[in-house]
Amino acid sequence: MAYAYWKAGKQSERSVFDLYFRKNPFGGEYTIFAGLEECIKFLANFNLTNEEIDFVRDSLPGCEEAFCDYLRGLDCSDIEVYAISEGSVVFPKVPLLRIEGPVAVVQLLETPFLNLINYASLVATNAARHRFVAGKSKLLLEFGARRAQGPDGAISASKYCYLGGFDATSNVAAGRLFGIPLRGTHSHAFVSSFMSLDEIVDKVLRSSDGKGTCEDFICLVQTCLTKIQNSSSLQGIFSETNQSELAAFISYALAFPNSFLALVDTYDVMKSGIPNFCAVALALNELGYKAVGIRLDSGDLAYLSTEVRKFFCAIERDLKVPDFGKMIITASNDLNEETVDALNKQGHEVDAFGIGTNLVTCYAQAALGCVFKLVEINNQPRIKLSEDVTKVSIPCKKRTYRLFGKEGYPLVDIMTGENEPPPKVGERLLCRHPFNESKRAYVVPQRVEELLKCYWRGNADEAREELEPLKELRNRCIKQLENMRPDHMRRLNPTPYKVSVSAKLYDFIHFLWLNEAPVGELH
Amino acid sequence: MAYAYWKAGKQSERSVFDLYFRKNPFGGEYTIFAGLEECIKFLANFNLTNEEIDFVRDSLPGCEEAFCDYLRGLDCSDIEVYAISEGSVVFPKVPLLRIEGPVAVVQLLETPFLNLINYASLVATNAARHRFVAGKSKLLLEFGARRAQGPDGAISASKYCYLGGFDATSNVAAGRLFGIPLRGTHSHAFVSSFMSLDEIVDKVLRSSDGKGTCEDFICLVQTCLTKIQNSSSLQGIFSETNQSELAAFISYALAFPNSFLALVDTYDVMKSGIPNFCAVALALNELGYKAVGIRLDSGDLAYLSTEVRKFFCAIERDLKVPDFGKMIITASNDLNEETVDALNKQGHEVDAFGIGTNLVTCYAQAALGCVFKLVEINNQPRIKLSEDVTKVSIPCKKRTYRLFGKEGYPLVDIMTGENEPPPKVGERLLCRHPFNESKRAYVVPQRVEELLKCYWRGNADEAREELEPLKELRNRCIKQLENMRPDHMRRLNPTPYKVSVSAKLYDFIHFLWLNEAPVGELH
Repeated sequence: MAYAYWKAGKQSERSVFDLYFRKNPFGGEYTIFAGLEECIKFLANFNLTNEEIDFVRDSLPGCEEAFCDYLRGLDCSDIEVYAISEGSVVFPKVPLLRIEGPVAVVQLLETPFLNLINYASLVATNAARHRFVAGKSKLLLEFGARRAQGPDGAISASKYCYLGGFDATSNVAAGRLFGIPLRGTHSHAFVSSFMSLDEIVDKVLRSSDGKGTCEDFICLVQTCLTKIQNSSSLQGIFSETNQSELAAFISYALAFPNSFLALVDTYDVMKSGIPNFCAVALALNELGYKAVGIRLDSGDLAYLSTEVRKFFCAIERDLKVPDFGKMIITASNDLNEETVDALNKQGHEVDAFGIGTNLVTCYAQAALGCVFKLVEINNQPRIKLSEDVTKVSIPCKKRTYRLFGKEGYPLVDIMTGENEPPPKVGERLLCRHPFNESKRAYVVPQRVEELLKCYWRGNADEAREELEPLKELRNRCIKQLENMRPDHMRRLNPTPYKVSVSAKLYDFIHFLWLNEAPVGELH
Repeated sequence: MAYAYWKAGKQSERSVFDLYFRKNPFGGEYTIFAGLEECIKFLANFNLTNEEIDFVRDSLPGCEEAFCDYLRGLDCSDIEVYAISEGSVVFPKVPLLRIEGPVAVVQLLETPFLNLINYASLVATNAARHRFVAGKSKLLLEFGARRAQGPDGAISASKYCYLGGFDATSNVAAGRLFGIPLRGTHSHAFVSSFMSLDEIVDKVLRSSDGKGTCEDFICLVQTCLTKIQNSSSLQGIFSETNQSELAAFISYALAFPNSFLALVDTYDVMKSGIPNFCAVALALNELGYKAVGIRLDSGDLAYLSTEVRKFFCAIERDLKVPDFGKMIITASNDLNEETVDALNKQGHEVDAFGIGTNLVTCYAQAALGCVFKLVEINNQPRIKLSEDVTKVSIPCKKRTYRLFGKEGYPLVDIMTGENEPPPKVGERLLCRHPFNESKRAYVVPQRVEELLKCYWRGNADEAREELEPLKELRNRCIKQLENMRPDHMRRLNPTPYKVSVSAKLYDFIHFLWLNEAPVGELH
């Protein structure tokens, strides 16, 4: 297509494209914008290698050599990108990016930009929705690396889930690249790789303060197991526990006495996993360490977490171990927004959710439909028509604003022509639905925020926004979500947030529409 | 976890892991195995850099320096990988890979291997299912780059869709990397970037044989448009066509006279796009070129494709242009298995389907649940129990065979212990369901194929299978699918393919199960 632009002599015509989506994902009324930093990095590194140009030449029989020369000289020094800040809450139809520049170059950016933004925004939104349903106080751990689209997909997933409000990831590579906190446990295979207690050769554990040494940690654990067995509330609850599991837990505690967290469902949670874990945790406690907690990866998580909590509390009470009841219960196993919501309704004692497949694949809706539409070329506004009104594009190089009401909530986003005066605080303004003539409202904004800021202006470093660290994008996301009116956020029948155009832009859209659309004929 | 293995002195214990899935995706009864080559490349390049080891040290407080030395020396020279050939049709529970080696190293391979195989196999299966429903004669084009999980995800998608039976991709990078045929058209923006015919400066087009030159191609196109308007069957069907669209088509034809393919729905398919396209195609025809065809990206594709075909055929007949009626009609716009099936049922004239979002995101089922389970350590078989029978693992280092019947179809896959004699052609063999004691059948195989072959044996190049080119994996996939009994393949209620174990392995599984499972107590 670049070749066709070039052949037509149009390659350098100044064009303006909007990148936006038409519908919020997951049946919700909000989306988190992510992927901007990657787009800006793509621009900074954009150029075609000789090998790539050779490939283009071979793939286009008849391609003129002068076109290859043109490709060789291509860069993004003539491109300007205006964008909403990454991590912002965003809405349909409002441009996330406005890209300006020579039409052939901007068109080469279409697929990479859509690729970099679609999944990033989708998975960040998915993460934010999981955070919303789990509540602020729960730990959310991203466990998705094994189900993502390849290694890069896994790393993007970890990055954008953190941006969307997750606390940590099990993906060590992502932790290293982006400074995301790491959390993980051991696998079932670790447990089943042990056969018996005889396998543990080095049984020595120093106490936490370094002052004492336990010469036989296994023996200490066994004593603790007997204490639990004989404690008043737990008598008769379990008998023989699985000794290979016990060996695995002891080994894990010897390796990580400061952060002991065990997967307790390899054999039987209540009859084996929990008593074994508690015995090891008690033994660690006697040496001044605090075990972290357990992970459940199967079964009825509401029921099991409640039983586990009771078990922990019984030990705290019977054996007088302060805070033993507060140990962390982590749940995993095909969790998603719905199952977390169902657990909340049923009541549970889970402190941390490990979420993988459904989070990173965005199982509930696997794609966000961002599009990239020409809105102006050579200072002429362009419109893309469609028999489906939701697919008609909003023409013109535009500015966009978010208007806030008295209570501090955002009320409406408004798009205006580039040269219209901006909305003013305290001044009444007519906001119109872009396509539905009867939908309009007057708004008196208490605060006005311009949404599109310049993130790329050729190679000039001045006068453009800095890319912020991931942590700040995450903070923006969390803060903006907290500032949304609650009815936009609820899971069931949320109220759509209003997106509008100025009266002037409305009139212009409809003038252009009538001009371009063919007139039907009745026979 | 590697640290815990190391602390326990178990890091070098010889272990055997199986990688397999439990359920075919998309409600079907087959899966295409893909991703093996990437796993083998991962093994060949496996090592930890000093920076990575420093990161591990910082992330594990208390980590002993000797462990870092151990990590520094890690490689895959002690690993063996046996796998089913990539591109094969595969079934639940049968190991796709058997990985043997020091337990700590094999566990480090778990997440990367699952990551590399889960998505690859899922999307290849999705592509194969699209091929099945579209039929052999249709062109299938992968258009998914913009909706995949980042640039790598897009490239994997293109690769594995081709493996699963697609014909081409619009992803130029994937085309270059893997030699996949490229297909693409222009965008709506290309059409709307034109304002009028005046924009076309260079109107000259040489004839296909190089002997003649048309000095004003625009004029020729306009003459052709009038011819169409006045042809007996098409009179009064359309009046004024959109001139900016016509300008775009002419420009595109001037750039690609040998491969002219136009997107015809920017304004109105039947009133503007098709007449404009046909005028340009006729003009090309007069100069000895053959236009390729059109793409429809909206509307009722069954109805429109039929109308378009009629229009093409009317021109072939009225204006005596041989083969004009056979031009390719490409359809795109959120297509998937269901919509292609619905189009087939309704009747359509589409020759090529461009499929993106639903294909590469595997919208219908966004994850394949491959797992990685320990089946033996130190020559001791291991089993992973679960209250859910489908989650119980099949213990032991195993061999696997596919048994073929008289008609050449595969009948059943069977797993045996490593040292059992292999099934023999013509000899009756009892095949048992691994968990359900009443399900068993005698089989007299007419052909026996061992499924697991050695693809990695330390660093030794000898005695292991070569990695094959993508094209051969694709051929294997197509051939094996053609050789399946049709009732396994049908979309509605397909018959499950049988997966079994030998009588000896059956007995051993159940012996181990009883041994490991806790005995309940009735109170």
